[in-house]
Amino acid sequence: MSQAKKRLAVLTGGGDCPGLNAVIRAVVKTALNNGYEIFGIENGFNGLVTGRMGLMDYKDVSGILPRGGTILGTTNRDNPFKFAVEENGELVYYDKRAEVLANLEKHGIEALVVIGGDGSLNIAARLAKECGIKVVGVPKTIDNDLPCTERTFGFDTAMAMATEALDRIHTTAESHHRVMALEVMGRYAGWIALHSGIAGGADVILIPEIPYSINSVIGKIRARQAAGKQFSIIVVAEGARPVGGEMSIARMVKGSFEPIRLGGAGEKLVREIEEKTGIESRCTVLGYLQRGGTPTPFDRVLSTRYGVAAAEACMRKEYNVMVSLQNDKIVTEPIEKVASEPRLVPVDSDIIRTGRQMGLCFGD
Amino acid sequence: MSQAKKRLAVLTGGGDCPGLNAVIRAVVKTALNNGYEIFGIENGFNGLVTGRMGLMDYKDVSGILPRGGTILGTTNRDNPFKFAVEENGELVYYDKRAEVLANLEKHGIEALVVIGGDGSLNIAARLAKECGIKVVGVPKTIDNDLPCTERTFGFDTAMAMATEALDRIHTTAESHHRVMALEVMGRYAGWIALHSGIAGGADVILIPEIPYSINSVIGKIRARQAAGKQFSIIVVAEGARPVGGEMSIARMVKGSFEPIRLGGAGEKLVREIEEKTGIESRCTVLGYLQRGGTPTPFDRVLSTRYGVAAAEACMRKEYNVMVSLQNDKIVTEPIEKVASEPRLVPVDSDIIRTGRQMGLCFGD
Amino acid sequence: MSQAKKRLAVLTGGGDCPGLNAVIRAVVKTALNNGYEIFGIENGFNGLVTGRMGLMDYKDVSGILPRGGTILGTTNRDNPFKFAVEENGELVYYDKRAEVLANLEKHGIEALVVIGGDGSLNIAARLAKECGIKVVGVPKTIDNDLPCTERTFGFDTAMAMATEALDRIHTTAESHHRVMALEVMGRYAGWIALHSGIAGGADVILIPEIPYSINSVIGKIRARQAAGKQFSIIVVAEGARPVGGEMSIARMVKGSFEPIRLGGAGEKLVREIEEKTGIESRCTVLGYLQRGGTPTPFDRVLSTRYGVAAAEACMRKEYNVMVSLQNDKIVTEPIEKVASEPRLVPVDSDIIRTGRQMGLCFGD
Amino acid sequence: MSQAKKRLAVLTGGGDCPGLNAVIRAVVKTALNNGYEIFGIENGFNGLVTGRMGLMDYKDVSGILPRGGTILGTTNRDNPFKFAVEENGELVYYDKRAEVLANLEKHGIEALVVIGGDGSLNIAARLAKECGIKVVGVPKTIDNDLPCTERTFGFDTAMAMATEALDRIHTTAESHHRVMALEVMGRYAGWIALHSGIAGGADVILIPEIPYSINSVIGKIRARQAAGKQFSIIVVAEGARPVGGEMSIARMVKGSFEPIRLGGAGEKLVREIEEKTGIESRCTVLGYLQRGGTPTPFDRVLSTRYGVAAAEACMRKEYNVMVSLQNDKIVTEPIEKVASEPRLVPVDSDIIRTGRQMGLCFGD
Repeated sequence: MSQAKKRLAVLTGGGDCPGLNAVIRAVVKTALNNGYEIFGIENGFNGLVTGRMGLMDYKDVSGILPRGGTILGTTNRDNPFKFAVEENGELVYYDKRAEVLANLEKHGIEALVVIGGDGSLNIAARLAKECGIKVVGVPKTIDNDLPCTERTFGFDTAMAMATEALDRIHTTAESHHRVMALEVMGRYAGWIALHSGIAGGADVILIPEIPYSINSVIGKIRARQAAGKQFSIIVVAEGARPVGGEMSIARMVKGSFEPIRLGGAGEKLVREIEEKTGIESRCTVLGYLQRGGTPTPFDRVLSTRYGVAAAEACMRKEYNVMVSLQNDKIVTEPIEKVASEPRLVPVDSDIIRTGRQMGLCFGD
Repeated sequence: MSQAKKRLAVLTGGGDCPGLNAVIRAVVKTALNNGYEIFGIENGFNGLVTGRMGLMDYKDVSGILPRGGTILGTTNRDNPFKFAVEENGELVYYDKRAEVLANLEKHGIEALVVIGGDGSLNIAARLAKECGIKVVGVPKTIDNDLPCTERTFGFDTAMAMATEALDRIHTTAESHHRVMALEVMGRYAGWIALHSGIAGGADVILIPEIPYSINSVIGKIRARQAAGKQFSIIVVAEGARPVGGEMSIARMVKGSFEPIRLGGAGEKLVREIEEKTGIESRCTVLGYLQRGGTPTPFDRVLSTRYGVAAAEACMRKEYNVMVSLQNDKIVTEPIEKVASEPRLVPVDSDIIRTGRQMGLCFGD
Repeated sequence: MSQAKKRLAVLTGGGDCPGLNAVIRAVVKTALNNGYEIFGIENGFNGLVTGRMGLMDYKDVSGILPRGGTILGTTNRDNPFKFAVEENGELVYYDKRAEVLANLEKHGIEALVVIGGDGSLNIAARLAKECGIKVVGVPKTIDNDLPCTERTFGFDTAMAMATEALDRIHTTAESHHRVMALEVMGRYAGWIALHSGIAGGADVILIPEIPYSINSVIGKIRARQAAGKQFSIIVVAEGARPVGGEMSIARMVKGSFEPIRLGGAGEKLVREIEEKTGIESRCTVLGYLQRGGTPTPFDRVLSTRYGVAAAEACMRKEYNVMVSLQNDKIVTEPIEKVASEPRLVPVDSDIIRTGRQMGLCFGD
Repeated sequence: MSQAKKRLAVLTGGGDCPGLNAVIRAVVKTALNNGYEIFGIENGFNGLVTGRMGLMDYKDVSGILPRGGTILGTTNRDNPFKFAVEENGELVYYDKRAEVLANLEKHGIEALVVIGGDGSLNIAARLAKECGIKVVGVPKTIDNDLPCTERTFGFDTAMAMATEALDRIHTTAESHHRVMALEVMGRYAGWIALHSGIAGGADVILIPEIPYSINSVIGKIRARQAAGKQFSIIVVAEGARPVGGEMSIARMVKGSFEPIRLGGAGEKLVREIEEKTGIESRCTVLGYLQRGGTPTPFDRVLSTRYGVAAAEACMRKEYNVMVSLQNDKIVTEPIEKVASEPRLVPVDSDIIRTGRQMGLCFGD
């Protein structure tokens, strides 16, 4: 097949994250502005297997910068190495790498930008290693816990939404003299809880990295009462665990597509506090509100930088890397590194120390 | 005791609601501007019984207009006619109307403004009828379901928060091809679900006033799929019920302080949809996020109008009324009327018809 | 020409206004849901003259509910009765009603929905009267000053933006002990200034309906200083005028397309205050920020109601009317009525009285 | 005078900036939590001269985290080395360093935290050098242009407000086929214009660091028209200048208290564009809206970190420094360094390159 121009492709994989469209827009505009053609692949790795993809033009990405979600669609199930197909009412799994290679070859696609979290980037790393596909990864997670990069896009937006929620429950807690808890995302790492807790003026912050003692939490609530504060605000990461509790990360199966189900960390906590103190205690689970909606200006800038850098890496033929933010510069790292441990909050970090000086209780 | 000026008092009772502080500010400023003194009573009827109250000045209400919550504190438990006191680890109930009368007399308080929902206004009505206390009520509920008033303060803010939440889950639903449901408040009446559903572009709106058939809901989802829309958005009021289900309102005990616990309407719905359709379906419960936070400009204006009107009613000695909004004018109604049925969404209303013309499914 | 379905058309004219897209969406969906076809006309009356129009489908209006602006485009210049064409570097004016009629007939369009302010609706009324075109008007203005309708769409959003701006300048005024003024839109009527002033806790509100005395304004600032408040917040409508100043409305040429240029009301005011009091005084002009952006949930509901009602009027063949809101119901009024005087704030209105009781200064 | 505890003091100087209260709160809470007493000084250096200051307690900083402005008050005029006093209607200037020393000694204040921009920090540096006062500076400016620190608090909020404004004018520009310009702050450096321009999807960004050619700007607008885009969005820093125009920085008098008045950069630009292209062009000046209002969550975290670090520096007796952010860590730098050149946007920076790849025009 003859084609006048070099071709790239882009897909989004895994859970929704504010800024996906901003990254797509930046990849597409940079490619087009530099004389490349670019394919959009639908629904993550599903479209790569099934061949659902098409050329993108400026008008396809016009106006999408402030919008949440992804115009390409996404799934957090499909894996070309173990591709589920329903047959006779049951799921049967196939290796579909041949289809992936055929689809890329058919359209003359030179390299593939994968915007995704650890699951998607691990698949991208295998596609590079095992099939010789040229990939560039863009690290995506609202949890901010991917290795090698200081700030993932989507985190600032999720953290801002959690802070807004804290502002809202603050006034109710104060008016009703209650303990109010907000459960936020953070299966392995407590970045959202930590930052929103400081930004929202929480009294207690519970994160997976610091196992908590219920007595410590209750001690803080009591101390506030003694000082005339009849209410307390708690932010709890979904992966927070009491001392002696199993750490989520210990149960994590790397590259697995069956994430361990958490849930109920906040509800469990407020029930225990109410029982032990008699103070009315309530929990709100923020859930999907953290994943959607328009990205903050900070995230729009970061997403645009990532997208431009990913396209640039393709154009200078620096493959099998992921772009990442280090010391406020966009650099590249080998994509295999995404398979290393999640980037946890250092328990001696500047921000934790800041919290301690402010009198916050981390449950220890 | 001698006092130069006439005295009023104000209290807030029941659940938190955006605009409480704006009403308090308007009552206090109007009273002071007209040469009255005004007492703030702490923690609703609790302070009225226990005597926790104090004179308020301009500086006490300075800067509170945009703030959620209530600077006076509130509870949704205390009732002077059946006042709970803990004795030997058990709750014993006393009639405390003598204390209420003594406290008002001691400070020379001429009339009392009660800002509250049906529970608090029912108590106010009894205080008027049975004890001769002069009261003026201000109707408060985010649910917008109080009799005699077209719009309660707090509703616009709650509805706006629900709409913002719909905007957020919309992008996730679309990107993931999911059914996403949002459960909002509305035990007896579906005002929040209805308005936010139309404002947020929902596909299905389920309210207590219209019992729903799951087949109707699924039919809508299927019809959207057939038209190429791989996702659907549902708003469900907490009091929504399937055809044949018990209506919350039937179980309502008027003036009771033990509200029937609902819960799970949204989660139950998405489980059923996922089972019957195989489409990934998720639910978010908005909960306390609807009650807190800064009131919308609309609610700030409405709250200020209510507060001024309540103080004016006191000053012209029009007692035992509640202020209400009718045809965009603030009028007064006998306070006993609050004991009538909740104001439900008329099923043949202009807004429901609007929704039907837009192709929305109401589950019937 | 044969066509299976009846056909309607829709256009947007005049200045940008939040909710335009929501109205378009409601008109289009209602038409399609009822078996009609609907044309979108580009750039207001320009497209009606030049024939730029096309059939609209569900996908054209998908996702536009929360977006500001109008997908159809708009101008506030073009008038079919006096249509400007550039010839040899000069503007020559033509009567283009024949072209309008030809374009509507060519496509078999039965009736036309015009979404616009007094300028556009006056043209629509002439098209009805002089050319026999069947029109339905939807009243649009952020200023809320159209006759016969209690609330125009766009007003709540503009007022909310003005309130947000007041919240922002409030903290600066207080920290710096300054007089800060915000100039908002309102050439003839002070609705935005009045509502945002009450919602934003302004100290002085100046509206066209009440000519102001600078001494009254300065008196208020001085009184606040005497009470320990070293700052003051003023909202001033662009059409506000000192006692003896010419009222904008007196200079208004009905149906004219050359609006009288105002400007500088706020800047002039703060210079005068600073000179006479020595207090640092600053003005911010809100300008276009009031016209754009996502509509508030309130405006989205109202816009949807208007759009549905306009399509319904077409379908029941009730022509040459505009839809309007009265007592919270959507009704219809003869479209010629739009040519009557702007709907001013009644100076004895409930809201003005509310402001006076709160101690606000209206400059009189 | 005997006192049990060591004492610190804190003041805020210069223009309003979101996050001031968050810094104050962090300084106060850290001091109190570590057994120090802390004085709040009113109205910047004015209170230091006149002795208006008082001990602060937890309750003074309760609830101020999300609020704009400064509870301590500020001025951008007062300078202890040249203190203006009105005598017989004229300003006479005095050296008031003796009063400053006396006031600090009188209250036994050990060290002083100065939260301010280059003007205030220069005064602080002189107080340290010439009077032996122990100071710690916290760099404050929405402009992000202070030396030695990567991000000043307030910048993220100002940039977010500018981005919101761009989102709003975007829809109006598109609907009306106009050129819309937004003038933002940035006398010497273009940080706000650059970041908000990328976050808001601007087409042209004009900053002081890159002198612009009007032909380049018009070329971009024409190119967009040729590609079917009938509108363009421009962000222009107040200090932007055409090629050959005088650079603001060249006219800057370091440490001066009479800043050169800029103004009109945006209005001048759109007039020129409209004249040369015939396209309707409008400008909005964002002004004070950038300075006030609640800080973003990002700024709340950063402000809290700065405040804690400043108190910690005092406690470990590391004086005459300013805290600053470098590689996402809070470090200290000699306070004299604030007197060096403003930190300009590097014209070869990652973000500028990002903008160029996106096809943005920087006017060169």
